[in-house]
Amino acid sequence: MAERKKLYEGKAKILYATEDPNVLVSYFKDDATAFNAQKRGTIVNKGKINNAVSTHLFQLLEAEGIPTHWLQSPNEREMWVKPVTIVPLEVVVRNLAAGSLCRQTGLGLGTALTPPLVEFYYKKDELGDPLLTRDRIRAMAIASDEIVHQLDTLARRINQILIDFFNGCSITLVDFKLEFGTLTDGTLVLADEISPDTCRLWNQNETDIARRVMDKDRFRQDLGDVESGYQQVLDRILAHTN
Amino acid sequence: MAERKKLYEGKAKILYATEDPNVLVSYFKDDATAFNAQKRGTIVNKGKINNAVSTHLFQLLEAEGIPTHWLQSPNEREMWVKPVTIVPLEVVVRNLAAGSLCRQTGLGLGTALTPPLVEFYYKKDELGDPLLTRDRIRAMAIASDEIVHQLDTLARRINQILIDFFNGCSITLVDFKLEFGTLTDGTLVLADEISPDTCRLWNQNETDIARRVMDKDRFRQDLGDVESGYQQVLDRILAHTN
Ligand SMILES: Nc1ncnc2c1ncn2[C@@H]1O[C@H](COP(=O)(O)OP(=O)(O)O)[C@@H](O)[C@H]1O
Ligand SMILES: Nc1ncnc2c1ncn2[C@@H]1O[C@H](COP(=O)(O)OP(=O)(O)O)[C@@H](O)[C@H]1O
Ligand SMILES: [Mg+2]
Ligand SMILES: [Mg+2]
Repeated sequence: MAERKKLYEGKAKILYATEDPNVLVSYFKDDATAFNAQKRGTIVNKGKINNAVSTHLFQLLEAEGIPTHWLQSPNEREMWVKPVTIVPLEVVVRNLAAGSLCRQTGLGLGTALTPPLVEFYYKKDELGDPLLTRDRIRAMAIASDEIVHQLDTLARRINQILIDFFNGCSITLVDFKLEFGTLTDGTLVLADEISPDTCRLWNQNETDIARRVMDKDRFRQDLGDVESGYQQVLDRILAHTN
Repeated sequence: MAERKKLYEGKAKILYATEDPNVLVSYFKDDATAFNAQKRGTIVNKGKINNAVSTHLFQLLEAEGIPTHWLQSPNEREMWVKPVTIVPLEVVVRNLAAGSLCRQTGLGLGTALTPPLVEFYYKKDELGDPLLTRDRIRAMAIASDEIVHQLDTLARRINQILIDFFNGCSITLVDFKLEFGTLTDGTLVLADEISPDTCRLWNQNETDIARRVMDKDRFRQDLGDVESGYQQVLDRILAHTN
């Protein structure tokens, strides 16, 4: 393996350049952070699981006509992706109320949101990834109205595909975070990852509020068995796919 | 004066019922709070100044065709108002970036916002008055789209009237918070107060960033001379009106 230039080390992944300017390596780590990195830890095998889950979901979405950055996943820790310029917005889709939405609105955990909420947060660790309104996005000139509209439309299509897929795995897709970027020709594509780190996923075979959680909330809320929650998401995806 | 029933004691005012069900008394206190009441203090004469400023501005707005809750201001501490059911949204109009907008977006202090931002915050002390999106307002069923649209339109009209008026006083209206309520017949009217507690006002004759502040930011940021800042707002309004 040739020497690789590390471009960026984030909270969950490391990005490397390759000899090919059209290929980046995204290396999935076991490091876990929550609450804007105030809480830190390690989830054994998380990197492998998240790479495998993301790989499956990107392939599923590509098959459904959603453009993504995914190229291939040559080994357990690596995903090769198209380099993009990341739109500095975290696009959050919510089907049921949870997390900061409950804290900030008083809506009860699990309240159904119909239509689903599509929300935009400023991807800026120093500012704590604050919620943005459409008007704030405009005032900050982060993205044009046209891009915001495209993000909204793509996020809702992705949501429908993922809801159906996870239902087939007896998992409820509560909410999830997406990142998008633009290729050099300006095309908007789905980037980053979709994994138990970035989704809230509830086991439909469990009614107990703590036991049903299969995602990073196990880590955030110290519910224990974090790795087995993540592993079970992957196992169900594999079982459903084969 | 007949015995009055105290209906509510808030951070800045006390509301009393009167014998007349169509009249409430709003009594302006000198108590000051900031940062969701984490900071507390007293600003001597604040109640009187805020009552006088609010009285002038409500009269001005009424003359311009904006319906308000104001009935009369029989003495220095009291404003008599029409009872309303308060819409639990703080409507914030921003002409220049300041305060939490700067902290949450990275926009520089004083950045011009064209068109002005009209923002909605959930009036709920326990939750820290969080910013809401239009979609969250809908999901929470706080107010119909039609009411939100009316609030937006009214807030922008009020903003234009106040900008012009304060310019005549050599004061820049940076931003301000409004509360609205509905009368028993459903009419939406402007309620609460408009004062140096609820506006950011910059003295146009001062360039120094700390000296120009005439509003509650003097208290929030410990800039000193809080009372004289408030007093000067009132003095200029009185000088301009006569
Ligand atoms: N295809 C891509 N091209 C360029 N950058 C990407 C791509 N996909 C994801 N990224 C960015 O790479 C980083 C991935 O590492 P991560 O650990 O998630 O970082 P962070 O802590 O910033 O979220 C993120 O900043 C993400 O926005
Ligand atoms: N015309 C009105 N009728 C009923 N309530 C009102 C009216 N005008 C203002 N209010 C409410 O009365 C209270 C005024 O007291 P204040 O000290 O500002 O309270 P708070 O600490 O809740 O902001 C506020 O809760 C405000 O929403
Ligand atoms: Mg990340
Ligand atoms: Mg108040």
